[in-house]
Amino acid sequence: MMFLLDEAEQWIEANRSRAKSDKRLEGLTQINAFFENSTRTLLSFEIAGKRLGADVVNMHAAQSSVKKGETLIDTAMTLNAMRADVIVIRHMSSGAVRLIADKVDCPVLNAGDGSHEHPTQALLDALTIRRRRGSVAGQRVVICGDLLHSRVARSNILALTALAAEVRVCAPSTLMPAAIERMGVTPFTDFDTALDGADVVMMLRLQTERMSGGFVPSTREYHMRYGLTLDRLARAKPDALVMHPGPMNRGVEIDSNVADHASRSAITEQVEMGVAVRMACLDVLTRRARGVEGWA
Amino acid sequence: MMFLLDEAEQWIEANRSRAKSDKRLEGLTQINAFFENSTRTLLSFEIAGKRLGADVVNMHAAQSSVKKGETLIDTAMTLNAMRADVIVIRHMSSGAVRLIADKVDCPVLNAGDGSHEHPTQALLDALTIRRRRGSVAGQRVVICGDLLHSRVARSNILALTALAAEVRVCAPSTLMPAAIERMGVTPFTDFDTALDGADVVMMLRLQTERMSGGFVPSTREYHMRYGLTLDRLARAKPDALVMHPGPMNRGVEIDSNVADHASRSAITEQVEMGVAVRMACLDVLTRRARGVEGWA
Amino acid sequence: MMFLLDEAEQWIEANRSRAKSDKRLEGLTQINAFFENSTRTLLSFEIAGKRLGADVVNMHAAQSSVKKGETLIDTAMTLNAMRADVIVIRHMSSGAVRLIADKVDCPVLNAGDGSHEHPTQALLDALTIRRRRGSVAGQRVVICGDLLHSRVARSNILALTALAAEVRVCAPSTLMPAAIERMGVTPFTDFDTALDGADVVMMLRLQTERMSGGFVPSTREYHMRYGLTLDRLARAKPDALVMHPGPMNRGVEIDSNVADHASRSAITEQVEMGVAVRMACLDVLTRRARGVEGWA
Repeated sequence: MMFLLDEAEQWIEANRSRAKSDKRLEGLTQINAFFENSTRTLLSFEIAGKRLGADVVNMHAAQSSVKKGETLIDTAMTLNAMRADVIVIRHMSSGAVRLIADKVDCPVLNAGDGSHEHPTQALLDALTIRRRRGSVAGQRVVICGDLLHSRVARSNILALTALAAEVRVCAPSTLMPAAIERMGVTPFTDFDTALDGADVVMMLRLQTERMSGGFVPSTREYHMRYGLTLDRLARAKPDALVMHPGPMNRGVEIDSNVADHASRSAITEQVEMGVAVRMACLDVLTRRARGVEGWA
Repeated sequence: MMFLLDEAEQWIEANRSRAKSDKRLEGLTQINAFFENSTRTLLSFEIAGKRLGADVVNMHAAQSSVKKGETLIDTAMTLNAMRADVIVIRHMSSGAVRLIADKVDCPVLNAGDGSHEHPTQALLDALTIRRRRGSVAGQRVVICGDLLHSRVARSNILALTALAAEVRVCAPSTLMPAAIERMGVTPFTDFDTALDGADVVMMLRLQTERMSGGFVPSTREYHMRYGLTLDRLARAKPDALVMHPGPMNRGVEIDSNVADHASRSAITEQVEMGVAVRMACLDVLTRRARGVEGWA
Repeated sequence: MMFLLDEAEQWIEANRSRAKSDKRLEGLTQINAFFENSTRTLLSFEIAGKRLGADVVNMHAAQSSVKKGETLIDTAMTLNAMRADVIVIRHMSSGAVRLIADKVDCPVLNAGDGSHEHPTQALLDALTIRRRRGSVAGQRVVICGDLLHSRVARSNILALTALAAEVRVCAPSTLMPAAIERMGVTPFTDFDTALDGADVVMMLRLQTERMSGGFVPSTREYHMRYGLTLDRLARAKPDALVMHPGPMNRGVEIDSNVADHASRSAITEQVEMGVAVRMACLDVLTRRARGVEGWA
């Protein structure tokens, strides 16, 4: 994982320069198969692939044969038969990406599957923390929000604990997975307590469909107990970093003056790191097929 | 504006040749963010960018985070963080493009915002007039149709009056903006009178939603009073040019024998000029970032 | 037709290699105008064009001006005015592709129009048969399924009979076109009889909308009489090939153990041949415009 973060560093600078094109993936076909809509992640992978010179093709769910009753495995075999060199998958079902990866000859990148994982999001978050805080190890990171349904939270917990961060998770009890402490994190239901001495505060998006009813009494109530306000942020370290995977519900899980805080918010930087991390993944995963020395 | 028209001239010829590719935008990322559907304009900008060698990425409204309640400014900041080099925006709200332009570091092109402006349409129309009539200055141009809701009309009035054309506008009183003469044009409600001695007749599309009810009694009635027929065209100059931004409602605002008139209709030429004008805009607007001599 | 199959052979190998890019269509604009959704065919044409170096642009029906009441001919004239070098059309109406081809200056490829034709599907099927059986001529090919509505069947009958195959068609009488024997094929309503001594069994997709009601009593009934099972396949030659244009309804027109049969099923190979055949078509059709020697 450290290796991928190191590899991503070069792309940050390249992306800020005038001429961003690199031809190393020229002649390779990258298929972005998105069975679930996601503007940001699709854009990020598409830009990453194009900057590396790949032929990038998007397959949208709405046009998909899946609607005609085709099985996921048949779709996978079709993409494979078209001789894709790398496939990026987003799917609403946990485990769908693994199912596809087992059926194709090329590398498969998980761009989010159900409530399971979203690994490139965790990588970009780790990269953002490493650049802004010097290191991930030893950082006290508080992840707050809908932990029960969040693949972002799950992937971040796995990545950040592996990189030796101290991870605290915070959610109302209705949105807290059972036995989450087995993942090596400390659970809190009181946000103020969780924030104490935090280096990084990572807010999760509250999905609209959870905002009323069984999980959360109301957005107003949620904001009062779990919204990140400037007052509440004061409980973290004075230079604590604020993060959010986007898209944000301003005024619900995060206040605008926190989200837009010039020195504390790293939210747009996360987006930038996203492109760099995805370029690193696309490059590294295709090295073997490209016959790069040491990878063949 | 004259400068952009001059710049566009070179692309007309290039687009008619066998090998259309020019690499000057190679390594640059162009994001087409269309919050409102528009096949023609999106295709035109996409083709323009690709012919210049840019990495072109489309963001469709239907996939957009906007649907998840993200603010427009957050979307803008996301596109910016991905290090776009030029952003093309189409939006249903007047002023949305300006709002985005204020938040990003790269040039932003307005591909139509609400009932406000559609500047590249005005440029392509001016270019078409200049090529077919020798000059824009001094031409009597009649713009007829739904002036109240038309960004095409608004942008054309601004462009054509600036280029010293004599602009007449014609609409039923329900579709005529108040005090439009302040824009330097002469309003008419009688189409026959407006057409007298015209060099150019520019018909506007009648949006389906205006076709019945408050604005227009019926399409039949509208055609009788404001439809461009061959008979009516005879009131203009013998070599007057017929224009329409498309898509046309044949038999409503324009008759087929007028729209398809071999020598008088410039409608498909407008489409062709559109690609050339957009190539000129994309080239010129990125010159500074590309470090082109004299623009840095 | 043989010439196109020969041309396609080179692309099969190219697509299997590491570096797939060929620049022969560089600087050319390929517009895929899909008025009807089709993930597979669109992906296949898009990948084919990109591997040849073309600037590929997709026009989706959902965004289309067609929805605004524009005529098909106006759309064609618009694409033409943008100086497309090759246009690929998919349309729900039989004959729509011809209508467009008559109005534009560049070659037009039919990617399926109504229940009329789907010529590249027939080419890829012929290529698959030729590679797997050595030749098309003399092969006994059984085409089974909804012959009445299938453009795949129609195009295959035309291609395979032209290439001197012995073509048998099989369908329930409600899905059998009148006087189909005039196309040079032998009709059967009993699938078991049709399969006798077959070299190739080509199953057609049963459209969901035919599955109940007027045409077919039930999917269960259909499977019993016309579904390809291992038992039934035993009536064909011992090495008979199984084909399906996809997407499949597993358990309806074809059983999973047949579709996935390691040595008998050529279904994923068909997909692979599709890209190669489309590359050959795009290459050959643009040779004249590219001034390739012997084609100008």
